[in-house]
Amino acid sequence: MTTYRQIVLASRPQGALTPENFLLQTVPVPAMAMKEGEVLVRNHYLSLDPYMRGRIDDARSYAPPQPLGQVMMGGTAGEVIESRSPAFKAGDKVVGMLGWAEMGICDAQWLHKVDTTAVPLSAYLGPAGMPGITAWYGVTQIMEPKEGQTVVVSAAAGAVGSVAGQLAKLRGSRAVGVAGGPEKCAHVVGDLGFDACVDYRAGNVKGDLKAAAPKGVDALFENVGGEIFDACLARMNPFGRIALCGLISGYEGQPIPIHNTRAFLTMRLSMRGFIISEHLELWSHAMRELVPLVATGQLKYRETIAEGLSAAPAALIGLLHGKNLGKQLVKLV
Amino acid sequence: MTTYRQIVLASRPQGALTPENFLLQTVPVPAMAMKEGEVLVRNHYLSLDPYMRGRIDDARSYAPPQPLGQVMMGGTAGEVIESRSPAFKAGDKVVGMLGWAEMGICDAQWLHKVDTTAVPLSAYLGPAGMPGITAWYGVTQIMEPKEGQTVVVSAAAGAVGSVAGQLAKLRGSRAVGVAGGPEKCAHVVGDLGFDACVDYRAGNVKGDLKAAAPKGVDALFENVGGEIFDACLARMNPFGRIALCGLISGYEGQPIPIHNTRAFLTMRLSMRGFIISEHLELWSHAMRELVPLVATGQLKYRETIAEGLSAAPAALIGLLHGKNLGKQLVKLV
Repeated sequence: MTTYRQIVLASRPQGALTPENFLLQTVPVPAMAMKEGEVLVRNHYLSLDPYMRGRIDDARSYAPPQPLGQVMMGGTAGEVIESRSPAFKAGDKVVGMLGWAEMGICDAQWLHKVDTTAVPLSAYLGPAGMPGITAWYGVTQIMEPKEGQTVVVSAAAGAVGSVAGQLAKLRGSRAVGVAGGPEKCAHVVGDLGFDACVDYRAGNVKGDLKAAAPKGVDALFENVGGEIFDACLARMNPFGRIALCGLISGYEGQPIPIHNTRAFLTMRLSMRGFIISEHLELWSHAMRELVPLVATGQLKYRETIAEGLSAAPAALIGLLHGKNLGKQLVKLV
Repeated sequence: MTTYRQIVLASRPQGALTPENFLLQTVPVPAMAMKEGEVLVRNHYLSLDPYMRGRIDDARSYAPPQPLGQVMMGGTAGEVIESRSPAFKAGDKVVGMLGWAEMGICDAQWLHKVDTTAVPLSAYLGPAGMPGITAWYGVTQIMEPKEGQTVVVSAAAGAVGSVAGQLAKLRGSRAVGVAGGPEKCAHVVGDLGFDACVDYRAGNVKGDLKAAAPKGVDALFENVGGEIFDACLARMNPFGRIALCGLISGYEGQPIPIHNTRAFLTMRLSMRGFIISEHLELWSHAMRELVPLVATGQLKYRETIAEGLSAAPAALIGLLHGKNLGKQLVKLV
């Protein structure tokens, strides 16, 4: 192999993201350009995540925007091809942030070696990786669900939500999911073991949520925003905790007002927005819980896999519209 | 005196509160009916507070609604007339919750004796009482302002906001108020010592707030809701803290949506709604800071005083429309 393919962000969308905002390029393998301490990695999987949509816009946020004309950023899992670092050798399985590219050179400090004997490589981009740790952080550091309490998780069939609900269940809480469509809801209850799941597309979120959470909601893992968030706010119990992880219903610029503002006051709610990359000090702590749960099959997960780098733009757009079940990946090898 | 006057809630408003929702009654002084452990108090001041509007509605909230036909609830400061409790004697100055009445009998456990040698009795309903403690709680337990940070306080000319900003100043923060009209803003800066005050009635809240808080907002004491809250959200800095104390702009049923929902996520904000009566364990701690500050004149405050019990309904309505400067009281003696 003397060349590989990569995808750059070619333009910023006005409103909805389209495949035309991206550009596929073929570039030479840069093995000759490696410096001391660097590692050449062949990516096996790209991780697609909702936060990417925010990076594509040129807006004030927690991270600088994705630069135009550069490789689209993103998490990756792959194999070391060549190493100029004593920390890695060819054949090591690694996760990193090499972006939408079939290969890449990376400083060794930004790679993590992973053990794929009991946990498949792809799971390190899902329940045993950033999405799982995100769920773990929200549940353990913000929601603190107690035995017998009711927890609601929106986007419950997604990579983060699926783990959040299961972690709450493991702590003795009733876990109620919110997801779009009967297939996802059946998966959330039947496969993931949530106690109930509300199909927001069925048109009766308020009533269905009341039936699924008859004692009210003590903690909410919010990924969506908009009407679903408002419906949950209306069911919150006193001193309820809200981990605000995402607002995917507004990622294409849609208005996502909160109407049930009063609930924050009358129910004395706490809400905290968080970005998992700012809490690296807790990653190893989270992994000590998550990896064994995945290895032993106690933590269930599903993957939706797009084949080949060129499928990445459409797969990201699909993710933003809820077309995936579980973790959305792009398989490169 | 064989009779006294009291005001009961006669009906619940549909929308705006009116004087016709209340009824003035003359009743016999119940001294003969006193039981062991009870105290007969003559009220000198009634405290009027925004939270009362919520109690008047029959809605799910943190406290049961004010019952129809019963004395309107509320904080009071007065003097003991007769005591069947060893804890109090005639002439003692006390604060309690005797409601809208010139006199009342109260179990001794619900009264607090106050020292009026250095602090006037009425101040125990203001900066050295519930409103002051509310401000103290929000500032010290939620906002935690740091040296050099910027704090915004809405309803800054009110009983709570005026104290919140001054406490933030004492902790080395820049205090920016939001208030309605040039007179209030002049008071907030000139008398209370805030660094700046935005007049939300001037029609340029967003721009004026930017000018007053050029480095953004690190902590917000929110009393109002609606457009003012949204304007503050748009200026919040990363990891900003919001103490949600009131939503007075929506107390008559007006919609108070939050449009800047994204700020909670992109700026990783924390928000907590609170009700000071649920944190009694901190009252004495708060009072140890507040009472000396009032006694020495370091904590400035203003009172708006309505004369006579019959003025209470109109004064409460005025308070809900921002007609008061500082603490709204009704003087009975």
